[in-house]
Amino acid sequence: MENFIDAPAARLLALDWGTSSLRAALMTGDGRIVAEASSNDGLLAIPDRQFEQTLQRLCGEWLEQFPGTPILAAGMIGSRQGWHEAPYVSCPAGFDEMAAGVVWPEPERPLGFVPGLRATFADGSPDVLRGEEVQIFGALDALGLDSAIFVLPGTHSKWAIVENRRVVRFYTFMTGELYALLRRHSILSQTMPDDDGSAQARPADRDSFLAGCVEASRDVLLHRLFSIRARGLFGQLPAADQPAFLSGLLIGEEIREALALLGAAGRAMPLCLVGNDLLSERYASALQHVGIDAVRGPAHASFHGLLTIAKRRGLVA
Amino acid sequence: MENFIDAPAARLLALDWGTSSLRAALMTGDGRIVAEASSNDGLLAIPDRQFEQTLQRLCGEWLEQFPGTPILAAGMIGSRQGWHEAPYVSCPAGFDEMAAGVVWPEPERPLGFVPGLRATFADGSPDVLRGEEVQIFGALDALGLDSAIFVLPGTHSKWAIVENRRVVRFYTFMTGELYALLRRHSILSQTMPDDDGSAQARPADRDSFLAGCVEASRDVLLHRLFSIRARGLFGQLPAADQPAFLSGLLIGEEIREALALLGAAGRAMPLCLVGNDLLSERYASALQHVGIDAVRGPAHASFHGLLTIAKRRGLVA
Repeated sequence: MENFIDAPAARLLALDWGTSSLRAALMTGDGRIVAEASSNDGLLAIPDRQFEQTLQRLCGEWLEQFPGTPILAAGMIGSRQGWHEAPYVSCPAGFDEMAAGVVWPEPERPLGFVPGLRATFADGSPDVLRGEEVQIFGALDALGLDSAIFVLPGTHSKWAIVENRRVVRFYTFMTGELYALLRRHSILSQTMPDDDGSAQARPADRDSFLAGCVEASRDVLLHRLFSIRARGLFGQLPAADQPAFLSGLLIGEEIREALALLGAAGRAMPLCLVGNDLLSERYASALQHVGIDAVRGPAHASFHGLLTIAKRRGLVA
Repeated sequence: MENFIDAPAARLLALDWGTSSLRAALMTGDGRIVAEASSNDGLLAIPDRQFEQTLQRLCGEWLEQFPGTPILAAGMIGSRQGWHEAPYVSCPAGFDEMAAGVVWPEPERPLGFVPGLRATFADGSPDVLRGEEVQIFGALDALGLDSAIFVLPGTHSKWAIVENRRVVRFYTFMTGELYALLRRHSILSQTMPDDDGSAQARPADRDSFLAGCVEASRDVLLHRLFSIRARGLFGQLPAADQPAFLSGLLIGEEIREALALLGAAGRAMPLCLVGNDLLSERYASALQHVGIDAVRGPAHASFHGLLTIAKRRGLVA
C-alpha cells in the first residue's frame, strides 16, 4: 500500500477496471497523478462480486487520507457482468454525452461508472467498446485534436473516428485474440519457440514482422496463415521468426481491413496510436509500410479521459 | 476384428493414415471394398513408433487370410514424423509422378508410402498437402474427369486445380482449425451453447450459416468475427445461431479467397467437393450462394485413389 501522499488535495480517484486488471490513479484537478497503483484484480478474478473489498484493498489508504474524493470508473466494471451497469451510449458521442451517461448507483456516494459506446453500421449490425472511450477522450484532450482516427491495439483492437470532438463510429478487430490463439493453440504453435523473446532485442523480428505485413496486403488471410507452416517445412521461415511474421500478417490484415472500412477518411485525418509501447511500435511500422505516419498518444490517456469526464459532469472543479 | 472374408482374392490393403485416425480397406482389383475398418490410431496417438503393431491390431486377421497382399498407405504416416518419409512431389503431378514417388522402405515387403504434394507460388512460397492427393486422384478417376477444381473441406481445407489429369497447383486454408479455436477457446465461445447440435436438424442453422456467408463477402474478417459478440449483446444473434453463423463467415471467407486466387479458372472449370456429408453440404450451399454448382465426389475416394496408384505402380494387376 501507499504511504502518506504529500499533495495539497486529491480531486479524483480514477479507475481503469477491465476484465484482467485494475489500474488506479489519484489525481489533482489540474491532471497531476499524485499516486498510482495496479493489480490483477480484473473482473474475471473477483469472486462473489467483492468489488468494494477489492477497491478498498488497492486504494483504501488514499481514501482515508482524502475522504470524500469522487471515484470514477471505466471499463468492463461498468458492464452487465460488472459492479454496476452503465448502458452503452450510442455514437456519435462527445464529452457531454459521455458525462450524461455516467451512472451513480448510490445516491449518497460520489462513485460513478462511465458508459461504453455503441456504434451501428449501415446494415444494422452493432459494435461496442468499453474502457477505450476514456482513452480516446483523454488522448483527444491531451493532443488538442478536434478530429482524428484513434487506433487502440489490443486483444480486440479498436479504430475510432472522431470528428469535432465526438466519436462518430468505430470498428473492432479480433486481431490480438486471434494472434494468441494461433500462437499458442494452433498447428502453427508446434514449430514456434515457446518464448516470443523481446521483439525489440531481435532485429530479425522487425524484418519478419514486415514480411508478414507484405503478405497481408494480398488479402487472403486464411490461406496465408498456413504458409507459415509450409515455409517452415522447407526452411524458408525459421522457427524463431515465425511469431513476428504471424503478428505482421494479422496486424497488416487489420490495417488493410480498417482502411477499406474507413474509405477516404482513412488517409485524410491524422491517425493517433494509443497503447502499450511494443504493440504501438509494431502498429506504427505497419502503418508506415502503407504510407501512414501515426501520432503517438499520451501516457495515462485513460486517467486523463476520466478526469475530463469528471469535470464535465461537475464532479471536479 | 473382422471375421473370415468371403471374397475370391484381396489385391490391396489401402491405408488412409492421418494425424488423428487410421482408416483401412481391403480391396479387390476391380475396386470392390471387401472389408473396412478404422480406429483413432492417428499419428499423434501412437507411442514409441509402434506403427507395425498398430497396423497388425487393425488389419492382422486380413493379412493372415490374404498373406502377401500389398499395402499402400497415404497421409501423415508418410511424413517426416511418420513411419517412413515419402518426400513431397512437386506440382504439376499426375498419376505417373505419384506412382514414381511411392517409397518402399523394406526391399522384401510390398509396403509403400504415397508422397504428398508440394506447390510453389509465384513469390517462391510453398504449400503442401499429404493424404488429400489420393482423394483427388480417386475422385478424378471415379468421376471420369480430366480437368476440375477439387475442394476438400477440413481442418486445413485444400483447393486443387487439376488440368489434364495432373494437379497443377493448390491452396490451403486454415478454415476448420480457426473455426475450432474460435468456437471453443475465444471470447465468442462464451456466448455459444456447448453443443453444436445437428446442423441438419435445425432449419435456423441454415439461415444463420448463409447470413455468415453474406457477411464474408464484405472482406473484413477480423472485424466481422467480433460482430458475432456485438450482435449477441443486443439480441440480434441468438446464442444457438452463433456457431452456424461463425461457420458461414469462415467458409464464405475461404470461398472468397479461393476464387480470388483462382482467377478466371474458378468459374471456368467444374468444381468437385470431396469430404464428409455435413461439411460438404455446407460448402455446397455457400458455393451456390455465389453461383457455383458443385459436383459431389464419390465415397471412399482415398481408397480408390490408392488402388489407382497401386495399379499404375504395377503393384496390382
